[in-house]
Amino acid sequence: MTKIANACDGMMSRRCMLQSAGRLAVGTVAVAALPGTGLVPSARAADTRQPWPYKKLDPAEVGEITYNQWYSGLCMNAVLTGLFTPLRKSVGEPYTSFPIESFVWGHGGVVGWGTMCGTLLGASTATNLICGPGVAKDGEQIVNEVIHYYAGTQLPTFKPKSAKIAAQIPMSQSDSPLCHISVGKWMKRTNHGFFSAERKDRCARLTANVAMETARRLNEWSDGKFKAEHKLPAMVYNVTAQHNCSECHGSSVPDVITTGNPPPRKT
Amino acid sequence: MTKIANACDGMMSRRCMLQSAGRLAVGTVAVAALPGTGLVPSARAADTRQPWPYKKLDPAEVGEITYNQWYSGLCMNAVLTGLFTPLRKSVGEPYTSFPIESFVWGHGGVVGWGTMCGTLLGASTATNLICGPGVAKDGEQIVNEVIHYYAGTQLPTFKPKSAKIAAQIPMSQSDSPLCHISVGKWMKRTNHGFFSAERKDRCARLTANVAMETARRLNEWSDGKFKAEHKLPAMVYNVTAQHNCSECHGSSVPDVITTGNPPPRKT
Repeated sequence: MTKIANACDGMMSRRCMLQSAGRLAVGTVAVAALPGTGLVPSARAADTRQPWPYKKLDPAEVGEITYNQWYSGLCMNAVLTGLFTPLRKSVGEPYTSFPIESFVWGHGGVVGWGTMCGTLLGASTATNLICGPGVAKDGEQIVNEVIHYYAGTQLPTFKPKSAKIAAQIPMSQSDSPLCHISVGKWMKRTNHGFFSAERKDRCARLTANVAMETARRLNEWSDGKFKAEHKLPAMVYNVTAQHNCSECHGSSVPDVITTGNPPPRKT
Repeated sequence: MTKIANACDGMMSRRCMLQSAGRLAVGTVAVAALPGTGLVPSARAADTRQPWPYKKLDPAEVGEITYNQWYSGLCMNAVLTGLFTPLRKSVGEPYTSFPIESFVWGHGGVVGWGTMCGTLLGASTATNLICGPGVAKDGEQIVNEVIHYYAGTQLPTFKPKSAKIAAQIPMSQSDSPLCHISVGKWMKRTNHGFFSAERKDRCARLTANVAMETARRLNEWSDGKFKAEHKLPAMVYNVTAQHNCSECHGSSVPDVITTGNPPPRKT
């Protein structure tokens, strides 16, 4: 079976470390793909080869498409539509035949379970097609930065050219990529219910923000200027995690069991 | 832009309600796609039309493929590989050219953030391609049931034909679809670290379980026997949510603000 990069197996060659170190900011962890992984078997159709051809996006155009599409396809689908619609025009295949329509299911943090915000699932899908896949490779590093942006920014800031509703849309900061936390904090702050027009427009605007930030990072990457600023969380905490431990655990954050061998780190 | 089903806009025709009621178990909510949505523009390549052709899967075969693939592609990629490898043989396109390789990013609850388990992201991708997309339509209802299975079952129960390690792999129940919670509870119970061989094999086996359950549900659906047993969470709580409120909130579960109009319910 196809071998795909796996940071969790504790194996990484010095060659990979050095390759990665060259493109990571000082202080970040170099967790890179195993060399010679041959990610795409030759039998696959030509239009599935990764990475996909990319032409720089206009974030403002991406934002407008995304905002309007939210009202048809919700968060995950809207981010993909915002990013891929211009690429369908400027590049064509493989963007044209990718079934964006099937990627609605991320809404509400995956069919309403309130887990990862669907905007970030759409961004993940796009960056890992555009940059190519692999644990801690560029597609994932971009996603990691976009998640930090999502969690650490007062949102939404996007102002649509033609807003769907006249009301002012207040901002809030989630400190988490979870839909339940992000939407819940905004609802608490604004006293608007989940099914209100204001909540919907808040999510439509925030979705545009995430698509624009993703486009901005992809453009940096295309120019060879993208630098990962944060480690992937499992490398920080020895367990998969957010960075807001006390928000759920209070002052009783459990000790993390550290048996096993993490991949070597560059510190 | 393409109009995609949206349960959150408060619009649903009586026709849809009746269509859905016929396939939902008594007591579930009928939240269905808007009629005549034309999900796939005619300009798309033929192989992206949804739903995709489906031939019933052998869950045992799916489990074996998935377990072994986990060690190459981790959870999200392994579920997709387990489900699509037999379909590439029995059906061919569009499964053959779908870029499974790009769907590694769900590992660790999305690049290690500990949110939705990557197995369930793989299952979501597959069911919404196979059954077709749309809020609360079959692809999402199957995912909802698989998430309930994941959260409410002692896992893993899968026994590989050829295990990667000799150790016994204890089971645990997550009561949550979050990677951080699921893996964290298992680590606490077993005293194995995140980078241990035992934790990896636990995840590989659990990934096989999720792929097999997804295959079982898809087979039911193919036979016209699938029935949704649970409501999507946002329709229960008036906010996106899990069903384990007190696990984070303790005894102080916030009141949910209920301004706005949810879609009509069939009770």
